[in-house]
Amino acid sequence: RRCGFGEVIYGEGKDFELIARIIDSQIADAQTSLVTRVHPEVAEKLKSRFPHGHHHVLGRTFRTHLATEAPCPAPIDPSAPIDPSERSFHVAVITAGSTDAAVAAEAIETLTWMGVAVRVFTDIGVAGPQRLIHALPELRKASAAVVIAGMEGALPPVVAGHLSIPIFAVPTSVGYGATLGGLTPLLGMLSSCAANVAVVNIDAGFKGGYLAGTIIRQLENARDHSTPSENSSLKESQ
Amino acid sequence: RRCGFGEVIYGEGKDFELIARIIDSQIADAQTSLVTRVHPEVAEKLKSRFPHGHHHVLGRTFRTHLATEAPCPAPIDPSAPIDPSERSFHVAVITAGSTDAAVAAEAIETLTWMGVAVRVFTDIGVAGPQRLIHALPELRKASAAVVIAGMEGALPPVVAGHLSIPIFAVPTSVGYGATLGGLTPLLGMLSSCAANVAVVNIDAGFKGGYLAGTIIRQLENARDHSTPSENSSLKESQ
Amino acid sequence: RRCGFGEVIYGEGKDFELIARIIDSQIADAQTSLVTRVHPEVAEKLKSRFPHGHHHVLGRTFRTHLATEAPCPAPIDPSAPIDPSERSFHVAVITAGSTDAAVAAEAIETLTWMGVAVRVFTDIGVAGPQRLIHALPELRKASAAVVIAGMEGALPPVVAGHLSIPIFAVPTSVGYGATLGGLTPLLGMLSSCAANVAVVNIDAGFKGGYLAGTIIRQLENARDHSTPSENSSLKESQ
Amino acid sequence: RRCGFGEVIYGEGKDFELIARIIDSQIADAQTSLVTRVHPEVAEKLKSRFPHGHHHVLGRTFRTHLATEAPCPAPIDPSAPIDPSERSFHVAVITAGSTDAAVAAEAIETLTWMGVAVRVFTDIGVAGPQRLIHALPELRKASAAVVIAGMEGALPPVVAGHLSIPIFAVPTSVGYGATLGGLTPLLGMLSSCAANVAVVNIDAGFKGGYLAGTIIRQLENARDHSTPSENSSLKESQ
Amino acid sequence: RRCGFGEVIYGEGKDFELIARIIDSQIADAQTSLVTRVHPEVAEKLKSRFPHGHHHVLGRTFRTHLATEAPCPAPIDPSAPIDPSERSFHVAVITAGSTDAAVAAEAIETLTWMGVAVRVFTDIGVAGPQRLIHALPELRKASAAVVIAGMEGALPPVVAGHLSIPIFAVPTSVGYGATLGGLTPLLGMLSSCAANVAVVNIDAGFKGGYLAGTIIRQLENARDHSTPSENSSLKESQ
Amino acid sequence: RRCGFGEVIYGEGKDFELIARIIDSQIADAQTSLVTRVHPEVAEKLKSRFPHGHHHVLGRTFRTHLATEAPCPAPIDPSAPIDPSERSFHVAVITAGSTDAAVAAEAIETLTWMGVAVRVFTDIGVAGPQRLIHALPELRKASAAVVIAGMEGALPPVVAGHLSIPIFAVPTSVGYGATLGGLTPLLGMLSSCAANVAVVNIDAGFKGGYLAGTIIRQLENARDHSTPSENSSLKESQ
Amino acid sequence: RRCGFGEVIYGEGKDFELIARIIDSQIADAQTSLVTRVHPEVAEKLKSRFPHGHHHVLGRTFRTHLATEAPCPAPIDPSAPIDPSERSFHVAVITAGSTDAAVAAEAIETLTWMGVAVRVFTDIGVAGPQRLIHALPELRKASAAVVIAGMEGALPPVVAGHLSIPIFAVPTSVGYGATLGGLTPLLGMLSSCAANVAVVNIDAGFKGGYLAGTIIRQLENARDHSTPSENSSLKESQ
Amino acid sequence: RRCGFGEVIYGEGKDFELIARIIDSQIADAQTSLVTRVHPEVAEKLKSRFPHGHHHVLGRTFRTHLATEAPCPAPIDPSAPIDPSERSFHVAVITAGSTDAAVAAEAIETLTWMGVAVRVFTDIGVAGPQRLIHALPELRKASAAVVIAGMEGALPPVVAGHLSIPIFAVPTSVGYGATLGGLTPLLGMLSSCAANVAVVNIDAGFKGGYLAGTIIRQLENARDHSTPSENSSLKESQ
Ligand SMILES: Nc1ncnc2c1ncn2[C@@H]1O[C@H](COP(=O)(O)O)[C@@H](O)[C@H]1O
Ligand SMILES: Nc1ncnc2c1ncn2[C@@H]1O[C@H](COP(=O)(O)O)[C@@H](O)[C@H]1O
Ligand SMILES: Nc1ncnc2c1ncn2[C@@H]1O[C@H](COP(=O)(O)O)[C@@H](O)[C@H]1O
Ligand SMILES: Nc1ncnc2c1ncn2[C@@H]1O[C@H](COP(=O)(O)O)[C@@H](O)[C@H]1O
Ligand SMILES: [Mg+2]
Ligand SMILES: [Mg+2]
Ligand SMILES: [Mg+2]
Ligand SMILES: [Mg+2]
Ligand SMILES: [Mg+2]
Ligand SMILES: [Mg+2]
Ligand SMILES: [Mg+2]
Ligand SMILES: [Mg+2]
Repeated sequence: RRCGFGEVIYGEGKDFELIARIIDSQIADAQTSLVTRVHPEVAEKLKSRFPHGHHHVLGRTFRTHLATEAPCPAPIDPSAPIDPSERSFHVAVITAGSTDAAVAAEAIETLTWMGVAVRVFTDIGVAGPQRLIHALPELRKASAAVVIAGMEGALPPVVAGHLSIPIFAVPTSVGYGATLGGLTPLLGMLSSCAANVAVVNIDAGFKGGYLAGTIIRQLENARDHSTPSENSSLKESQ
Repeated sequence: RRCGFGEVIYGEGKDFELIARIIDSQIADAQTSLVTRVHPEVAEKLKSRFPHGHHHVLGRTFRTHLATEAPCPAPIDPSAPIDPSERSFHVAVITAGSTDAAVAAEAIETLTWMGVAVRVFTDIGVAGPQRLIHALPELRKASAAVVIAGMEGALPPVVAGHLSIPIFAVPTSVGYGATLGGLTPLLGMLSSCAANVAVVNIDAGFKGGYLAGTIIRQLENARDHSTPSENSSLKESQ
Repeated sequence: RRCGFGEVIYGEGKDFELIARIIDSQIADAQTSLVTRVHPEVAEKLKSRFPHGHHHVLGRTFRTHLATEAPCPAPIDPSAPIDPSERSFHVAVITAGSTDAAVAAEAIETLTWMGVAVRVFTDIGVAGPQRLIHALPELRKASAAVVIAGMEGALPPVVAGHLSIPIFAVPTSVGYGATLGGLTPLLGMLSSCAANVAVVNIDAGFKGGYLAGTIIRQLENARDHSTPSENSSLKESQ
Repeated sequence: RRCGFGEVIYGEGKDFELIARIIDSQIADAQTSLVTRVHPEVAEKLKSRFPHGHHHVLGRTFRTHLATEAPCPAPIDPSAPIDPSERSFHVAVITAGSTDAAVAAEAIETLTWMGVAVRVFTDIGVAGPQRLIHALPELRKASAAVVIAGMEGALPPVVAGHLSIPIFAVPTSVGYGATLGGLTPLLGMLSSCAANVAVVNIDAGFKGGYLAGTIIRQLENARDHSTPSENSSLKESQ
Repeated sequence: RRCGFGEVIYGEGKDFELIARIIDSQIADAQTSLVTRVHPEVAEKLKSRFPHGHHHVLGRTFRTHLATEAPCPAPIDPSAPIDPSERSFHVAVITAGSTDAAVAAEAIETLTWMGVAVRVFTDIGVAGPQRLIHALPELRKASAAVVIAGMEGALPPVVAGHLSIPIFAVPTSVGYGATLGGLTPLLGMLSSCAANVAVVNIDAGFKGGYLAGTIIRQLENARDHSTPSENSSLKESQ
Repeated sequence: RRCGFGEVIYGEGKDFELIARIIDSQIADAQTSLVTRVHPEVAEKLKSRFPHGHHHVLGRTFRTHLATEAPCPAPIDPSAPIDPSERSFHVAVITAGSTDAAVAAEAIETLTWMGVAVRVFTDIGVAGPQRLIHALPELRKASAAVVIAGMEGALPPVVAGHLSIPIFAVPTSVGYGATLGGLTPLLGMLSSCAANVAVVNIDAGFKGGYLAGTIIRQLENARDHSTPSENSSLKESQ
Repeated sequence: RRCGFGEVIYGEGKDFELIARIIDSQIADAQTSLVTRVHPEVAEKLKSRFPHGHHHVLGRTFRTHLATEAPCPAPIDPSAPIDPSERSFHVAVITAGSTDAAVAAEAIETLTWMGVAVRVFTDIGVAGPQRLIHALPELRKASAAVVIAGMEGALPPVVAGHLSIPIFAVPTSVGYGATLGGLTPLLGMLSSCAANVAVVNIDAGFKGGYLAGTIIRQLENARDHSTPSENSSLKESQ
Repeated sequence: RRCGFGEVIYGEGKDFELIARIIDSQIADAQTSLVTRVHPEVAEKLKSRFPHGHHHVLGRTFRTHLATEAPCPAPIDPSAPIDPSERSFHVAVITAGSTDAAVAAEAIETLTWMGVAVRVFTDIGVAGPQRLIHALPELRKASAAVVIAGMEGALPPVVAGHLSIPIFAVPTSVGYGATLGGLTPLLGMLSSCAANVAVVNIDAGFKGGYLAGTIIRQLENARDHSTPSENSSLKESQ
């Protein structure tokens, strides 16, 4: 089977009734839903109403899968060895500091909802350069990366100096003063001279994950059998 | 044969001697070079020195290819029909207005230098909504898009509403007053609720093209035979 | 009879006593009042004191009409067919997403208070391009439009590409990060290359509605009998 | 006959050949053209090529009319008495200082091109309050106003305090230091508590004029005979 | 007797003990104190401790006078006629809207503490131009003015167009969206072409009042007998 | 005799003919003129046309005086001793660095044109604290000060710590990078905790001088005989 | 013995368990820890768990020292005379106002944790110039200074005008309006023409202290016996 | 002998005569001079007038030394081995890209003028991570570092992760779009979580060098014999 990309609902300021109504109409169309920035209380009500759904507290997400199916694959344990015989495309999600965990969770939940495999690399800040060096051999196996960093946001260009895959940089609002609530890492990531860094909105873990996921999905299609023009038909079927 | 991704040189403020020296050392390593934002006079001198190189006047680029080989494939003629039997991955480069042509040229030259096929769609502004509707069937065949727009920068989210591929939005400095030299479309593109839009720096056609190119290259690998982890070895061989 | 344009009171930071005093003096002059950004508790007290008044909870408005008259016409039901024999001028109020509802309510309440007919078109975001296409035949019947959008604010120029009436764009503070509390859609709407888009302050549904209302009023005058110079006498009679 | 609203071409950065080609295709469709921000040398070439066209040096505009017709009506002489028996709708164009003249010229040329009558009121700055008081009786006869001001941009709200028609405020880049190239009057005009002020981009005399013109056109339709829904058909015939 | 200018204490973030200690040491030096931005609870404690002091709730000020003296003169009732035989210099404090009252109170309390006479003119907004015209004859009697306005901040240049005295413009944080918390009126007031407008910080009623007060004090000196160089000796005696 | 305050003309972007026409009409009304930011070539033509006028090259000003009178008093030589028997009110103009000289010249020319005495104190930067200490005894004799500083703009609050007169701070655009063309000293001067500092626009030497001049004029009136209400009549007679 | 520089933990948003785990692993490596911006409740729990640690309430820091050792030296009492026979290098921590005390505490705690001697000079604002003059002889004995100031941030360049040691300027978020939450003093300190002022982030007392401490440590090394290259080996041992 | 720190002259906007006069008065006091941002033509004239002076074309500096002495030591050749027996303190000047060379030259010239040894490390950008790794053993020998970087400014925190000495980060204006003329790297460097990074103004190579130089000078004093309080006496002798 293939996990389709359903509807994504921006949960900020939406109440339980409105969100439940959208999820219901998605189910009626045999589609899944992903709610981001959902209020904890709303999420708990959604969990009661859609017991097959999954609420991630830190990531503030709620995702549904079609009730008749097993959930989409869970994140790969980063410490587990990768099976070299398998051509399993996956996304690397990399965080600079432990305070970026909530944004990372949003990215991982989005990829999991898309049925895309993820490997997570935490606390790879530029202040501790050894950690990145050690992670490089494993990082090189990914087909796209989501790099999450606040404060000066220096991690994405540093990672990009080592990899030739597309890197989706997610600035976070972590920091104070001159970080301007995330504007500083946002502008820094855009200014980077690294050629393979694209940027999404501040704290937009969802977007970083989603963009990386659309690449993995196309790679799987290309590997398996489909023609390139098929990838776009996904949108039409939505 | 395969066109490798050589060295990209930021030409702003660099003189002929410095650039020529870098290109020479690249040639010594059997690598190609791409110079962006090159001064016209510098480019003309480079053309004399490296006659196999190609200077794009509007795009302000100079690219070299290995002298013993034919140049990497030229852009596909957008009016030509696509061969449906072929699984030829390509990038769509889309511009909002005729004043965005220079940035588009930088993106197209970058992709051509990478050996990646391009289809160009010009003047698809939101003020003339019919043009986008007409182009959609052809746009759906691309595996990644570079969307270039100035002023309010509304085109990328509008395009993204129709396609499910990664879209690299390039804001341009075209406009006046409230466009703030491109900051307004930059921030607008980042704020978009479209999930599949990533953003690069103002006027950074080079980056938009490069990012899209890294995806096509991986898709070709996946289609042909390689294992996913091979894509990263490109970087190591640089 | 004709609904005059009474006094508009900016309710932010004003207490019940102050607002009630202004409404009383308006009533003494046989004038109506509209309070915007009124605190819910203040509005409830106003409702007790002026039972003919109308409090819109989401829109945070309170409007009075002269007690001896029926209230000004309510919004037209958007799904109802328009009577083609009648020359009934009206305003289209268009929202991009469901989170823009509060600002739309302020605009609609203002127009209703002015006695101007409104047709409401909700959730016409650029991410779902089909909805706008479907609404176009009905949208073309309006004489002015209020278009409300947050995040990247791309909707007003897209709508303006289809209509040749004045469009009052209202940016909202919906969004996060790069939307800068509404500054990004504000600047984007101003930068638009669409010729017929004018902009008001962030979340200023009241202003968008009021401006559109002054056009409808003049059109009714022109249709019915009055000379053009009469329109300005409204101000003098206030 | 009726002057249609043809194509408006943003002349900045466009060369003679490109602009002439667009005008030619407009003529082939029996449509007029308006070029804004045209380079003086380009405009002179356009004048040679399209001798019926009109080049306004200060306003940096070039407008064409269909060669077989007389040009659209010229601006009304502001000192001339208005014919009270006639229901002639018109726009007031008001400037704060003599340095705003170029932006005013762009607005006036746009309205003239649209066939809309204009009355011009110059040097009505807030520093000389008497001038506004004296102009008020004549200002009250307009159906829409374009108010152009730089520096602190205080004029539009002051004018709006006296009139109940839609006012299109055009901030200019005149000034220095804290005026931030026009951003300060732009933001000030948006912040105004005057209900009937809408704002366009800095120096966008064209937009202010165009918006006011769409109102006059509708008023003429309403006065003459047409049904309200007819106004939008203008767009379709473009 | 003469009210000296004592110590001004910025109350924000200071607790009762710290403020009381400063006031005590001032009293020991036979000096008065003025506390601005004082927390209501701190002010009540100060009132218990220094019963001759005066707490202004809205203005968030607490001022002390020397216990053995009568308090400095209270504000003049604005509706009372001025005694034409007397050469009584005074400051006009002018507000644009009723929401500016707190900032005005801070200015008035500061002037009262300095022993400077004040006349207050409220609600002279540019949206109601008649009120300013009516107030002009009385306004012309002041020797300096403090003009307080939020939103677009247009009032100070409008007032300055009528008076030739120094005008201290105080922008307020009243407003939303494009007012940027008071930055917009701040920048607008600075950009004004009116020659006699100087600006102080946002909501800085204290500063506006203090500056105007230093002028009145010098005028009283000049009128009475002192030499000009005496005015500076005030500082030295502090 | 008394030097009246004539018309001030903002010379930026005005040509010779326009300025000469304004000066002529001022002369016809027996009024003087001051042109600021005048282009050097325009100023030279003005000098030929109005030979009694005075052109200050560095200050970019041109001022006229009534031809039948001697020019208003020139600046006092700062090294000369002041006549203690005389009650001669004057303004201190203080600059931080030698690069602020042009702005100082504009202030001094404005005061000279107003007939107000000036004492000039140059190069009193905070980096050389001794100079300020030495100048203090002379500085204390002024009735108002214009303090001109670029870069961090620290001089006005430092001077204000020593004097109790009104201080008009003029930020300059001298500096680079973080000075943001003068915005940084502007905001710093506004943020100062010194109570007696008011701020004018960047490089607005004219405004600083003019404001200080209105104080001196009132002090002279108060000293000599006039009633306070007389000061405003100056404006009426303009 | 020598106090090593252990791990610094940014406490914002980290819970007790996470912080305790890091401190434990530091202890296991015989290293100390410093937690900044620690939540008061978290700090109290840390104090229970690590009773040898020290919690500074105002500074929001928690620091540990190796349990078997006496704590690093406490700050020197600023009123105590310095022993002239001793070559004891130390840092001067200087604050402009009493509201800067929390940032100063963070700097002092950092230096104490590093085992670096500190002398504290409070309330040396530019508004009271005498205090700085009096403190100068003692200030001249320091080898580096941390100067903390909010509002206009004028103190660091003023201090720098008197000393030739490196000055680490710490802007604070104290102030309102034009201080922009500390951005204004930040930019002002960077713009200063004083050659020996370097700047750290807003409210970053920790950084100012840490930088000064690295200088003192090197001076002690140089004085005692070590070669210059030894200083860097500190890092390697971490 | 010891090279004293003479007068630093900000050359921007100063003409030859003014600068020569300052240098002359310095020579009269047996002091050296350093001119920064000197215009090339002015520098050539200075060279003729002061033939012992040194003009650095790229760095835009002119420095004088006392004519009777040999010039202060030149930069150390970075490829030369360091003499391990000598305790020679020095500064590392590190650049990210070749376009940062002019700013580096200003820093190096300043240090040379101060008589401080320098080692230069060029092109250590984060995009080529190997170069930094290779340079580390040599970098660890420095006592302070000046790190110069434009675009995203990621280099200083990356370097700081490897060294425990004070790092003076100099953002440059190299880049385009989102780099905002250097503001983005400036804010990024300030936001860095690296504890030992202090920041100076954009392109302020002079300041970075000067600050590092004051540390080396103190270290030399400490090593040789002086008491810590001696370092400040340098200032007094200026
Ligand atoms: N137009 C451009 N915009 C942004 N980065 C660029 C551009 N051209 C080249 N680069 C990047 O700049 C770096 C080369 O800089 P340089 O060593 O100064 O030539 C490489 O990392 C390129 O990816
Ligand atoms: N929501 C609003 N946004 C902007 N202006 C408003 C709003 N509501 C009322 N006003 C304007 O505020 C003024 C009334 O202010 P006030 O006298 O303070 O009640 C009138 O000019 C109204 O047009
Ligand atoms: N340098 C200047 N800066 C700011 N305002 C000025 C300046 N020079 C003249 N003005 C003002 O500009 C107005 C005259 O503008 P204008 O009518 O364009 O000459 C008067 O109100 C003057 O006070
Ligand atoms: N390039 C520079 N950037 C910043 N400050 C500088 C620069 N060059 C010199 N200065 C400072 O400017 C002051 C000299 O200014 P001036 O008296 O105008 O020559 C001294 O305090 C120097 O430290
Ligand atoms: Mg939706
Ligand atoms: Mg077009
Ligand atoms: Mg004028
Ligand atoms: Mg104090
Ligand atoms: Mg009102
Ligand atoms: Mg100097
Ligand atoms: Mg850490
Ligand atoms: Mg390179």
